Amino acid sequence: MEWIDYLGLVGVVSGSLTFVPQVYKAWKSRSVGDLSIWMILILITNVTIWLVYGIVRKDFPMMLANAIIMSLSLLMLYFKMTFKK
Amino acid sequence: MEWIDYLGLVGVVSGSLTFVPQVYKAWKSRSVGDLSIWMILILITNVTIWLVYGIVRKDFPMMLANAIIMSLSLLMLYFKMTFKK
Repeated sequence: MEWIDYLGLVGVVSGSLTFVPQVYKAWKSRSVGDLSIWMILILITNVTIWLVYGIVRKDFPMMLANAIIMSLSLLMLYFKMTFKK
Repeated sequence: MEWIDYLGLVGVVSGSLTFVPQVYKAWKSRSVGDLSIWMILILITNVTIWLVYGIVRKDFPMMLANAIIMSLSLLMLYFKMTFKK
């Protein structure tokens, strides 16, 4: 592996982590009024596309990262629907 | 180009669009209390990594998508710092 492949792996890890603090914050505060439902819906569409892309390309880190982001986006959607007044 | 390459292009476009509604919502409401600063900071780290990756791999759609997401994340960071009480 070259350094650029390692950089890609770091990108996959940091990509997977991106929405962890947001999900945690929403869960703890039970407040999601400032979150855009459209951001969440486009995000779900987007990770679905990249998950399929990763599966077809047989790219395991890509599948893993997108499966994690998919779970976090679905949690955000659930919080957005549930905590909404 | 095969269908999977087109799917990748759709992914790049939807990825670029993901944070547009969030930035618009934050700008309109001037309210960012429910946004996680850590999500924004990890997102900026993440797009920086993918931007470098795209530049090194000479992958133009990847550069473009990440440059757009970078601008939107920096806007979100600015809003988060400015609108915060």
